[in-house]
Amino acid sequence: MEDAAPKIERADIEAAFGRIARRIRRTPILDLGPGAFGVCAHLELKLELLQHTGSFKVRGAFNRILSAEVPGAGVIAASGGNFGLAVAYAARELGHKAEIFVPETSPAAKIRRIGSLGAVVHVIPGYYEEAFEASRTRAEETGALVMHAYDQPEVVAGQGTLGLELSQQVPGADTVLIAVGGGGLIGGVASWFAGAVRVVGVEPDRCPTLHAALAAGHPIDVDVGGIAADSLGASCAGVIGFAAAERFVERVVLVPDEAIRDAQLRLWEEVRLIAEAGGVTSLAALLCGAYRPEPNERVVALVCGANTDPTSLAR
Amino acid sequence: MEDAAPKIERADIEAAFGRIARRIRRTPILDLGPGAFGVCAHLELKLELLQHTGSFKVRGAFNRILSAEVPGAGVIAASGGNFGLAVAYAARELGHKAEIFVPETSPAAKIRRIGSLGAVVHVIPGYYEEAFEASRTRAEETGALVMHAYDQPEVVAGQGTLGLELSQQVPGADTVLIAVGGGGLIGGVASWFAGAVRVVGVEPDRCPTLHAALAAGHPIDVDVGGIAADSLGASCAGVIGFAAAERFVERVVLVPDEAIRDAQLRLWEEVRLIAEAGGVTSLAALLCGAYRPEPNERVVALVCGANTDPTSLAR
Repeated sequence: MEDAAPKIERADIEAAFGRIARRIRRTPILDLGPGAFGVCAHLELKLELLQHTGSFKVRGAFNRILSAEVPGAGVIAASGGNFGLAVAYAARELGHKAEIFVPETSPAAKIRRIGSLGAVVHVIPGYYEEAFEASRTRAEETGALVMHAYDQPEVVAGQGTLGLELSQQVPGADTVLIAVGGGGLIGGVASWFAGAVRVVGVEPDRCPTLHAALAAGHPIDVDVGGIAADSLGASCAGVIGFAAAERFVERVVLVPDEAIRDAQLRLWEEVRLIAEAGGVTSLAALLCGAYRPEPNERVVALVCGANTDPTSLAR
Repeated sequence: MEDAAPKIERADIEAAFGRIARRIRRTPILDLGPGAFGVCAHLELKLELLQHTGSFKVRGAFNRILSAEVPGAGVIAASGGNFGLAVAYAARELGHKAEIFVPETSPAAKIRRIGSLGAVVHVIPGYYEEAFEASRTRAEETGALVMHAYDQPEVVAGQGTLGLELSQQVPGADTVLIAVGGGGLIGGVASWFAGAVRVVGVEPDRCPTLHAALAAGHPIDVDVGGIAADSLGASCAGVIGFAAAERFVERVVLVPDEAIRDAQLRLWEEVRLIAEAGGVTSLAALLCGAYRPEPNERVVALVCGANTDPTSLAR
């Protein structure tokens, strides 16, 4: 039954903001004005890549932990990437134990960094599915609080605080471009705007998770790959994000990996920011024409992650 | 006669801002709150490294050009670095020719980038002095408008707009930390605040140009070197910046190269920004204790340049 998916209300997001505001950075807006990157619209970037741990994921992690009674066993999550970093960081800041299950395919640098935040890291043979199963088995043993990367109401409401901040910082925005993995970020932000601002999702054409779900009318499994798969490669959209997207996302556009790579290089050349592939996927839609704004449209692109190796930007 | 140095008044800076505001980016503040980097004070960063061409230098370059009658021969400058980039960019945006004289010791990447902005680049054997002399000889031949990197009133007033912006963005700031090369930036910003906010200069101990000038009571030649010399290695302070510093800079502190390198690495690790050595010299003073704030002090560090190779950050 589709309607069983929890709806995230603006009040949920306001409550989340009250819980997490002093724990997170209010990341700034960079106003590039009209004509930046040769695009006719008025472009602004929300620099969420400067958030603690280098991505927006701490918002949802803090809100989930601060909404719960955390048992002595602490919190548990499966992720070899940004969510793992965020859970480890939030748990450390709040004084809880954390266990993170990472697939052996994760970048060594991210695994090391999760451990350096004080979490117990379990490296599991195989892919995300195997790590996820192992984390659930362990949670049943220990009773730890289970953290889902994108499909828990508290996580989605936490990510929605990015929309709340944005509406204070850029009250005149017409359109917000958001990269999509499992749908937690776009679900939260779209629930905040609730149609008042045009919300456009952007996916790599090799990770068309939400695009496929909207076409099918429900979340479905897709094959994922390509250069942004480590952050956007959820093989199935979450039911919460999907339900919000059905109501409040105008459309989801697809971009090729080459456009993402080009956006990374141009963001460094013209703005001196280094973002990971998933972090500039929103901007890529504008640069490659997958999303074509009107001349006076005021567009905000969320630049949402920077967990890459700076040396990867070398041409 | 010391008093011959032109004084930069707040009205000059307001006028400069009126000329350049639509040409530059209003760079954002990142509020890191209390406790960031283990420092007790409330720390905010002015992200001027996100300015056009990756440094604050475009402010002064635009103001100098927009204050003058530019002859058909265009503008001329000597610089192998950030000022050369800024002059080339400003000239291109305003439709003027530009000739930039760069010492052969300049990084190849910067020389290439200056050329890619449309300037005619002359690579001169020797160091900055030789490039400077060659540029003056050429200017006498062509009549081009001479642009000085830090010792012209319009350039200093242009850099001062950074102080004007900052006073709007962080009205409660107690202290501003500013890296010093030839004294154009600190001279402009200190002239704006005129004692209302504590302005502290920071120099690498291998480029103690303003520190030595203040001790001597007038600009003097010093030996310069070390990791920030390409942006902060002026061998003698400008008379305009020196005069402003004597009136309005509380003190100049020195930091070792190791502290600058450490600040670069920590800025990437904890904030995901890549700055050049001269760009984080201000922050280095806070991290290494060369400047020790009070517990509730509100400190702004200007992060003023990012023209480095990201691969240089690899440990």
